[in-house]
Amino acid sequence: MLKECLENVRKNTPLVHNITNYVTVNDVANVILACGASPIMADDEMEVEDITSICGGLNINIGTLNSRTIKSMIKAGKKANLLNHPVLLDPVGVGASQLRSQTAKTLVQEIQFSVIRGNISEIKGLALGSSTTQGVDANMADTVTDENLMETIQVLKQYAKEMHCVIAVTGAIDLVTDAQKCYVIRNGRKEMSSITGTGCQLSGMITAFLVANPGNFTEAAAAAVCTMGLAGEIGYSHLQAYEGNSTYRNRIIDAIYNMDGKTLEEGAKYEIY
Amino acid sequence: MLKECLENVRKNTPLVHNITNYVTVNDVANVILACGASPIMADDEMEVEDITSICGGLNINIGTLNSRTIKSMIKAGKKANLLNHPVLLDPVGVGASQLRSQTAKTLVQEIQFSVIRGNISEIKGLALGSSTTQGVDANMADTVTDENLMETIQVLKQYAKEMHCVIAVTGAIDLVTDAQKCYVIRNGRKEMSSITGTGCQLSGMITAFLVANPGNFTEAAAAAVCTMGLAGEIGYSHLQAYEGNSTYRNRIIDAIYNMDGKTLEEGAKYEIY
Amino acid sequence: MLKECLENVRKNTPLVHNITNYVTVNDVANVILACGASPIMADDEMEVEDITSICGGLNINIGTLNSRTIKSMIKAGKKANLLNHPVLLDPVGVGASQLRSQTAKTLVQEIQFSVIRGNISEIKGLALGSSTTQGVDANMADTVTDENLMETIQVLKQYAKEMHCVIAVTGAIDLVTDAQKCYVIRNGRKEMSSITGTGCQLSGMITAFLVANPGNFTEAAAAAVCTMGLAGEIGYSHLQAYEGNSTYRNRIIDAIYNMDGKTLEEGAKYEIY
Repeated sequence: MLKECLENVRKNTPLVHNITNYVTVNDVANVILACGASPIMADDEMEVEDITSICGGLNINIGTLNSRTIKSMIKAGKKANLLNHPVLLDPVGVGASQLRSQTAKTLVQEIQFSVIRGNISEIKGLALGSSTTQGVDANMADTVTDENLMETIQVLKQYAKEMHCVIAVTGAIDLVTDAQKCYVIRNGRKEMSSITGTGCQLSGMITAFLVANPGNFTEAAAAAVCTMGLAGEIGYSHLQAYEGNSTYRNRIIDAIYNMDGKTLEEGAKYEIY
Repeated sequence: MLKECLENVRKNTPLVHNITNYVTVNDVANVILACGASPIMADDEMEVEDITSICGGLNINIGTLNSRTIKSMIKAGKKANLLNHPVLLDPVGVGASQLRSQTAKTLVQEIQFSVIRGNISEIKGLALGSSTTQGVDANMADTVTDENLMETIQVLKQYAKEMHCVIAVTGAIDLVTDAQKCYVIRNGRKEMSSITGTGCQLSGMITAFLVANPGNFTEAAAAAVCTMGLAGEIGYSHLQAYEGNSTYRNRIIDAIYNMDGKTLEEGAKYEIY
Repeated sequence: MLKECLENVRKNTPLVHNITNYVTVNDVANVILACGASPIMADDEMEVEDITSICGGLNINIGTLNSRTIKSMIKAGKKANLLNHPVLLDPVGVGASQLRSQTAKTLVQEIQFSVIRGNISEIKGLALGSSTTQGVDANMADTVTDENLMETIQVLKQYAKEMHCVIAVTGAIDLVTDAQKCYVIRNGRKEMSSITGTGCQLSGMITAFLVANPGNFTEAAAAAVCTMGLAGEIGYSHLQAYEGNSTYRNRIIDAIYNMDGKTLEEGAKYEIY
């Protein structure tokens, strides 16, 4: 149950190592705190192995990658694999530049990820970057709709199987899938896309949920996705007419801070396929 | 009309490439989203040309420049020039260090900017850095007042002519000028200077307005400056007595988010000289 | 009196040079503005000496240190020493990695600090890193409580004496001490630890207080610590039930913005030992 997944975070206060972009990093830290976990940000090659070792999980986000931090990502990821820590990849903007596409490709080759989370274009870009999934393009539309839902689920399940990890695609409809089972989640609001970094925030939160729920990664990731979407709904309900995306950002983090297992269980809107 | 300039942003959702400082980058991203555009932050030499190519315009801010990002600024700027994209320079703190002065000088030599935006000291510092404008100092006071207004406008028009670009000077009185025409704008509140990065935010927003209003850069920049100032007035009107600069920051971005063409047209306070 | 310490900041608007982490940097800048000072962030080796020279004080925070910025920290710190500017060290996460421990050790060897501020574990980690204080471990507990208070004060006074600087330890009970005199401060709320960077914010604010109160560093640091804690209490009193750590962050900065000498003097809860 999703309830337990959240409660395990609050109970265990997992420490999450983040190598993430400087645009949304403050919000990522506050979201990780809001859900009951604890963040550490560290990206220097000389310390990432030490930091990863004292944490329970690793969140790699390529948002403002550079030649220095790419090396740190690989080093930290390998160390986390060695320690059997969950590792998440957020391939921000993959496909937007050769550097991002190449880096994402290297990362999935060198590191075994527990979860890869992105929007549908990023996941598509990542899947197409690997030669074995060249054919995905024709079948995977750029927006997940009720019309292409079943087909998209099949493609993502296949990709999850190939990658041996959970794939989380967020958008109007969110999908969290492993090779067998796909959560189709309909929480959230379209206005969330007017806030920078709700995706990055979610990736940080998913990593916290993974650490607190070992052996149950698919449901843990689904619980984090539902928490974010539901917080988006609750946060929106407290907005005044004159408030906009900046206050909405705060309201969502506030709603995560106040989320309890019961609220999550009752507010989560999902089906499993 | 300013109204159309804003509406064109909301209609076209331009993509803006930002190479900007890590202090205010999150607010810059949220302001760009608030006005209806879309931000990308990327500063690695290996990817800036790719990123600039998929965007409509480039915002260069030297706020926390370093040896690595300076190279990226030049590379991205040249690429944007080649593609005929508008490019904005925000010479944050020019004059405060040799590195900033030298970098700003190199940038204006290597890149053709569409708009340069700064406070009066920064614009003065930049103008003095180039040998042809050595004499500006005596004529350009450190604060724009009603007393030195006409003289300052003449100096700025001359500088705009030399640089072949629009010069935007923000402060108690804002000036947006090309070689012929100067907007004298009296929106905004003095409390805005207690918030870090309102200038950086404005630079990001101007860039979005430039992309959405090709061939009309002076008015586009003036429209963005009026939007920011008016949002500062509207945001302030919603503050409680116990609220301060942090909430004010959010209220301004919220007011940009809710700004429509009619509100802008009616609230903009400017004269043209 | 604490009152004068705050009023001196508002009167003199000191300029503070910050070499700090990219996680909390925006909040640090807004807190420095909120208390009446002015922040500059600059971390490139080529400009830190210039920037430090135009400022009144230097805040060094090792939160997201890297090989490039470590060099800048040392260079800026030495320059600030030469100019007799107050310099603060915030040894974020010292002990969490070899790099942080080694860097902090180098910093305290190469630079004379005016104040070192951290939580009890960081101060402990730093003290243990230097060979002359190896024995501190047994005497310094990981939480300051009423039970170990007197013993902890003695240990910290000894450390302050060795370092020739003020030591500020923040937590449930805050301690600000020099070799002679220790302020035991009981402002603040436990919920402040759910916000990322309240420690970093405080370090920035202390530096501003040091610059504005030359020759009175212990009381200046204590005044800043009381201001932060009291702002935490005032900010909390304005929170709605549905609000959480993100809005709380804003409310604290707002409360600093609105803090006056009289409110501080009346609200500060401290004893001197």
